[in-house]
Order: sequence, then structure tokens, then C-alpha cells
Amino acid sequence: MSRWFHGGNAISEVSIDDRAFQYGDGLFETVAIRQGQPRLWGYHVERLERGCEKLRLLKPDGDALRIGLDKAIREGDVNPAHCAAKIVLSAGVSDRGYSRSAPTSAAVFLGLFPSLPVASEHYHHGVDTMLCDTRLAMYSPTAGCKTLNRIEQVLARLELQSTNIFEGFTLDAERRVICGTMSNVFAVSDNCIATPSLDRCGVAGVMRRHTIETLRKRGVAVAIRDICEAELMQCDEVFVCNSQFGILPVRRCGEATWHSHPVTRSVMSALAENGILECAQ
Amino acid sequence: MSRWFHGGNAISEVSIDDRAFQYGDGLFETVAIRQGQPRLWGYHVERLERGCEKLRLLKPDGDALRIGLDKAIREGDVNPAHCAAKIVLSAGVSDRGYSRSAPTSAAVFLGLFPSLPVASEHYHHGVDTMLCDTRLAMYSPTAGCKTLNRIEQVLARLELQSTNIFEGFTLDAERRVICGTMSNVFAVSDNCIATPSLDRCGVAGVMRRHTIETLRKRGVAVAIRDICEAELMQCDEVFVCNSQFGILPVRRCGEATWHSHPVTRSVMSALAENGILECAQ
Repeated sequence: MSRWFHGGNAISEVSIDDRAFQYGDGLFETVAIRQGQPRLWGYHVERLERGCEKLRLLKPDGDALRIGLDKAIREGDVNPAHCAAKIVLSAGVSDRGYSRSAPTSAAVFLGLFPSLPVASEHYHHGVDTMLCDTRLAMYSPTAGCKTLNRIEQVLARLELQSTNIFEGFTLDAERRVICGTMSNVFAVSDNCIATPSLDRCGVAGVMRRHTIETLRKRGVAVAIRDICEAELMQCDEVFVCNSQFGILPVRRCGEATWHSHPVTRSVMSALAENGILECAQ
Repeated sequence: MSRWFHGGNAISEVSIDDRAFQYGDGLFETVAIRQGQPRLWGYHVERLERGCEKLRLLKPDGDALRIGLDKAIREGDVNPAHCAAKIVLSAGVSDRGYSRSAPTSAAVFLGLFPSLPVASEHYHHGVDTMLCDTRLAMYSPTAGCKTLNRIEQVLARLELQSTNIFEGFTLDAERRVICGTMSNVFAVSDNCIATPSLDRCGVAGVMRRHTIETLRKRGVAVAIRDICEAELMQCDEVFVCNSQFGILPVRRCGEATWHSHPVTRSVMSALAENGILECAQ
């Protein structure tokens, strides 16, 4: 159901000596493909570039990346009108041991995946969430980056097993809310919108950035700051975002419930007008 | 120069959908092979088991693992008298996304690598080290485990590039000394031996455990506690250990130097008598 490309060729395997396999030494992006085009492409490329700087990998050529992706979309066994592309940048093959030279050219792998639209009722009525017990380590040197070191998200996601819960929020060790396993989170109180600071840990999503920038252009400030667990549970509205589904209201997190989402609706309208068509429902 | 085995067959590639490649979702061990036998085998298996528990992977069958390793040692293109085996346990192939079932059977990959003995002068005169700027994230849910999420060690190791420095020590964000990029560290003050607590981050090495247990059996206590950067720099002796080289005195760390290692020598003697033959020099 998926198809991977490397150097323009379809592949299904990688060298076992690839540092992504050995150490998670690399980065990735999951890009929404809509009507054959990668959405928020510039933001994805910029995040890859920041990640490469952090990991001391050579920055990819954004134009070449785009050409490869367009080719993969044409050749992949997916619906180009609505699918997901995954871009993996690895530090490549090396001898055993943590050492590698730097800057290192990244090896680029492109994967195309089918993706079903999120159920319409989730946009209308919101999704159920929970607080995970898995805590994110604090002061990570790669905070904000989408590296291939994702065991924390895997562990958090495992907590949702055998539930119908859509998303789990991870806290740091000091019980600050950081993000969902596959989304970023926003809290609304007294009509003020805030989203957690991701300086210590977490992944800074492209839809989070697009939401913040879309709102700022309309004169609506989004505070980026620490949000403790209690504040989240007591706020007026909660919503989550990611590159694939756009924005979804949250109707429940553990014991807390939210039945009305006026501010979230206005954010969704703003996003719908700025290219995120799923939010127009 | 290396050879990998999976399911009894020589391989050089893995599925790109393997979760080790996608998320670093797995564990590894690097085992010293001496005279055809894996050294500290029981400790390696126990650490894998603890890691599997944390990652919610099914524990490997230690006997089957050993049979596979023995076969690989016989068939690998290495010197069985002195080489290194790498065991990778991955969460296996899955669809895209962090979700997987748990417990999951781990996929086992065995690699055999040539390894040269560390230069004799390092055992006699000690090795040069430095403090890395890369900090380890604190309160990691997998603290102590040797997971495949190792970007921090890669970044720390990159700091040693273009130097002749043997090892770099990583601190946590609060400037506690945690471990070397590929070793654990011990500090000696007033004849008392201490090694950092690894409750918040770091990897608990098998040679660290063997050192602590060997000394305790001889009535020598090793304190496992927080050690700040200043304490390390001002202590009487420093030594490092790992599964491959055993124990090495440290003669320099940044500006600090140590020219005499009487306690380290006695620890090396104790280890040499307890199976770590490299320490008998």
C-alpha cells in the first residue's frame, strides 16, 4: 500500500548500515498532498533545513527535493488528490560507531501513502483525547525538530491502544503540556489563544506554524508559552492541528469536556480561507 | 568488513518500513567477542530484557539469541578471537504512524565487526577526554536503556571530530556528568569511587555493572549518585569503561589532568581477575 523512492528509483529496502536504522540519525516530514500538490511545502523544507543544521547534515536542495517528490507523486500507487508523502533524510551509511563526518550529505527517501480524510463528525463535534503517562524528556538538544528519534511518541501512542481515543497529549517531567503524539495543541481562555513553548522538547509542526502565522496576519495574537496541565484542563476550548487534518476541536481530555468551540471555529474558518480546505466544515 | 544476519541468513538490507529505520523503535547491544565467546553475555541479555519491558516488546529468547550469535560468529567474516557483535532488536515492520500493537515480537539482527584492541599505551598512560557542549535531555522515559534513539551521542561525538581526543563526556542540562559518548565514567576522591546515577538519562553499560559488582564482591563500595561537572574536574582520578575495552584511566579532561591512577589500577586488576583480560596491562 506504500511505495518508497530513493534516487528516482522505487525501493523497498535500505542498507542495514544506514544510520537511520542504527541510531535514528536523521529527520523526517509528513507532507499532505492535495490535488497533486504538497501543502505547506515551504514550511516543510524550512523545518528540514533547521533540522539539518542541528544534526550537521548538509541542507537538501529544496528544488531537487520538490522535483523528486512530484515524480514520486506521479509514479506512486496513491491518489494524488489526497495522500501523504513522507520524506526521510538520513545521515546515510557509515561504519559502526556514533562517529561520522560533518557536514554529511543526507540520503533522501520519499514515501507515498494513501490517506483517508478524517471523519467529518470530528470536525463538527471534536475529538476525544487523554493525557498520556509517558513524559517527554526535557532540554533535548533537538527540541522542536522532527528527528527520527521518536520512541517517546511510540510509547505515548501505545497508551491509546484498545481505546477509541483520537489523540494523547504528552507532558514534560514538570507537568507542562507539550504536544500530542501526532499533533500540536492550542488552549483558549478568555478569547486568548496559547500554544505550548517547544524550547525544551516536542515537535514544532508546520500546521502549528501556519495557524500562528495565519492568525497573526489577521491581528490575532497566539501566545507561545508554558501551559501546565491544570490550565489545559480548565481552559475554555482546546484544539489540535497537524499537517494532514488541519485543525480539529477537542471535546474531551480525560475528565474535562468542551461542548462549544466558538474561537476554534473562527480559527478553522481562517485556516480554511488560507489553504486548509478540510477546516471548511 | 561487516556481516549482518537475520533469521539465520546473511543480509545487507532491511525493509524501509522497519520501525528501527522510521522511528529508532528498538534496542541494541554491542558485545565483545573474545576467544569465540560473547563476554558478559548474561548482562547483555538482561539489559535487552529490561529495554524490551520499557519499549513493550516481547523479551527475546536468550538461548535462541545465543545460538544465533554463535552461528554468526562461526560464519562471520571476522576474527572470533577478538571482534564485536552488535545485536539490534527492532519493533519490526509496520504501517506508517507511531501506533503499533504491544507486546510486539522484536525482529533480531546480528552484526559481526572486526575490532582492533585499544592501544596498550592508553591502558598505561590513560586517555584524553573533553566535556561536550551537547547536553543529554533529562527525565527520559528510557533512561538507562540502550535504545536506537541515539542522536544525542552522535551530536556529542561530532564535537570530537578533527581532534585526537578519545572520548567526550556529556552533561545534562543541570551540568551533572552523565556518561561518555561510548563509555561510562567513574570518579575517585579520597579513595571513594563514584559513578553517575543514570535515572534521568544516559546508558547503563554492562561494563559499568560488571565493575560495580566485581568491586562490591571485594567489599569495595561504588556510590551511584549525582556528580557535578566541578566534582569531576577536581577529583583524584577518573576512569572510563565500556564493553569492548574494559577500563581505561583518564589522564586529561579539558584543562584538568591526572598523572597517577592508583585506585584505577586496583580496579583494573580486579577486573582483569574477573574476566576482562585487557585490564591486565
